[in-house]
Amino acid sequence: MDISKIWERIARPKGGKIVYLIIDGVGGLPKEGKTELQAANTPNLDRLTRDSSCGLLEIVGPGITPGSGPGHFSLFGYDPIKYQVGRGILAALGIDFPIKKGDVAARINFCTIKDGKVIDRRAGRINDDTNRRLCEKIKSSVNLDFDGEFFLETVKQYRALLVLRGKNLSGDIDDTDPQQTGVPPLSVKPISNEARNTASLVRSFIDQVRDILANEKSNMILLRGFDEYRPFPSLYERFYLKGVCIAEYPMYRGISRLVGMEVLPPPNSIKESFELLEDHYGEFNFYFLHIKEADSYGEDENFDGKVKIIEEVDRYLPKITALKPDVLVVTGDHSTPSIMGQHSWHPVPILLKSKFTRRDKVDNFDEYSCIHGSLGLRPGMHLMGLALANAGRLKKYGA
Amino acid sequence: MDISKIWERIARPKGGKIVYLIIDGVGGLPKEGKTELQAANTPNLDRLTRDSSCGLLEIVGPGITPGSGPGHFSLFGYDPIKYQVGRGILAALGIDFPIKKGDVAARINFCTIKDGKVIDRRAGRINDDTNRRLCEKIKSSVNLDFDGEFFLETVKQYRALLVLRGKNLSGDIDDTDPQQTGVPPLSVKPISNEARNTASLVRSFIDQVRDILANEKSNMILLRGFDEYRPFPSLYERFYLKGVCIAEYPMYRGISRLVGMEVLPPPNSIKESFELLEDHYGEFNFYFLHIKEADSYGEDENFDGKVKIIEEVDRYLPKITALKPDVLVVTGDHSTPSIMGQHSWHPVPILLKSKFTRRDKVDNFDEYSCIHGSLGLRPGMHLMGLALANAGRLKKYGA
Repeated sequence: MDISKIWERIARPKGGKIVYLIIDGVGGLPKEGKTELQAANTPNLDRLTRDSSCGLLEIVGPGITPGSGPGHFSLFGYDPIKYQVGRGILAALGIDFPIKKGDVAARINFCTIKDGKVIDRRAGRINDDTNRRLCEKIKSSVNLDFDGEFFLETVKQYRALLVLRGKNLSGDIDDTDPQQTGVPPLSVKPISNEARNTASLVRSFIDQVRDILANEKSNMILLRGFDEYRPFPSLYERFYLKGVCIAEYPMYRGISRLVGMEVLPPPNSIKESFELLEDHYGEFNFYFLHIKEADSYGEDENFDGKVKIIEEVDRYLPKITALKPDVLVVTGDHSTPSIMGQHSWHPVPILLKSKFTRRDKVDNFDEYSCIHGSLGLRPGMHLMGLALANAGRLKKYGA
Repeated sequence: MDISKIWERIARPKGGKIVYLIIDGVGGLPKEGKTELQAANTPNLDRLTRDSSCGLLEIVGPGITPGSGPGHFSLFGYDPIKYQVGRGILAALGIDFPIKKGDVAARINFCTIKDGKVIDRRAGRINDDTNRRLCEKIKSSVNLDFDGEFFLETVKQYRALLVLRGKNLSGDIDDTDPQQTGVPPLSVKPISNEARNTASLVRSFIDQVRDILANEKSNMILLRGFDEYRPFPSLYERFYLKGVCIAEYPMYRGISRLVGMEVLPPPNSIKESFELLEDHYGEFNFYFLHIKEADSYGEDENFDGKVKIIEEVDRYLPKITALKPDVLVVTGDHSTPSIMGQHSWHPVPILLKSKFTRRDKVDNFDEYSCIHGSLGLRPGMHLMGLALANAGRLKKYGA
């Protein structure tokens, strides 16, 4: 049973305001005895912690390292096992591409083939400029015979995005990327009957691209992660939440649109992120403030950099507490321990403050202290229910 | 996966005796730094705590505030998401109405209409006497043309209960209560084909009532929560438990009947509740002792009253421990923090004592101390499995 279905049933149209401060990848592992959160000097977080209920969130499940999509779906109350989006869609969201319902998207790798076989899946990691030049060359020459249009967008290095927009398209198409060298690209195979026409279009696209790129080092493309964009039932439909997203990075703005939030223009700094929240406070009832850099430094194995970001967030925290939101949540979408340099499965500390929280005897916001909090260790999916309840947004279940 | 299905499969016909002492709404929130359980002087509970395993139960799910029905279903090992009963049935259980399998029940509001539109959904909150007079008036005049009978019972103030008893009745009928004023009552709509005849009966009932009450201030009725009474598979069928209920309030006796327990005559005080248990100890293998007043004071925002009830329960606790039950459980069916004056979603402390429990280093039975217990924070549904196991009533699972 997906417990969020119960929240949908008992959600109230009225209630308090909820603020989520999500520090991406905030959870960590000790280096020289301390995690990033333990090493950081965070007087404001510590004060808030003493006023809050604490715990740890296992974002998707035991041993499961969440990507950015599932990590946030979980925090927003969308079961990350049930609600999935293909990589093509995430790639589109990740570059702020204005994707529309019904669009089919796929990730592209520029690659090198010889005698019909892939010899380099990344075409020697070409740079962004080359990528852009190749995309322009393709766009100006390809001619697809259908009642619609296609978009080809540079992502980064050897990666690009293909989007098909038109009627009756389907994302049920297998990857053409063989995920190894020494073999030919896979042919375009529809997985369902509905995808036959779309598969023909993609086949035609690839055939033309092969000719257009014949004299390039990147002389072929590999496609994967086909998916059709279907926005999730919105936070408002589900829980009467009018959400707003404040995020520097496109991926998080895209995820927010997927669940029906409004999205503010991207701030240019952590300070600006907090100021945007101040400026727009009162217009919505759900505020998602996303701080990316803790994750970026974690991925760069930069322990001190991550610590500094946490300290910077701490400095601006009083800007949020001064707004006196009915419910304030601080947590992350997953851990990114600097000593691992990547996302990890480790549970993430959480604090939740409202006038109905059991303040526990936790003095510090970190991976070890929060174990003793009254929220316990629980699935990330639980968060939305707790936030809604604390905001007075859930009716009693049963008489 | 509903874990209770596994308990059903491995339940043993023999084993020890289990006592549930359920203090309704016992969980709370701090007022001036202490919860009701922390403020109460409970030497006997504290002593028992030191001999027990402790933890916290999240009765239905994260953020979900349980009504009395779901709260108890969960403690009795009936998944409260799967096992649901309509409000009509709960109303019948709540006034000790001798409801039978196949009966269809609905809640009634006496209301006031003008020019066909509801102008007061509660008819000015008429008192119980008026309610009784109106019920009598209706019962003596209504004539329903079917092979069966109907019952009309006063509940309280403007609320009453309608029960239809006969063959092939169905509870698949929509509410006629529009839940707002300024609009007419909704017409009686069957939700399924099987409910067509029952809907005609209800329609005829309402039409006659409208005529009968024409000159009253309460000149109409609104019906909601139609449901057919289907007892759940019993505790004996499921777990070989011969249960007995000791409860002052009808709702809890009704819920106990629903799961197949015997029900003792209602005690008149907390003291009598404990004495009834002493008197009947040995005749059953599952004892459900329900103490209502902690919840009542909580709902009245009477912190001190709730504290006193907890202290009173504590005084009589030795009467249970003297019986040396194989398994003794003390917990609640939900929290009712006095500072909120209503049921809440907050987890409820639990202690479980048997000769097989891991005694943990918890010295006090309260919301904060029990976090550190060995039962952890877990769904309320888990309790029955733990109780059965500790009573030696579950076989090994698999070879």
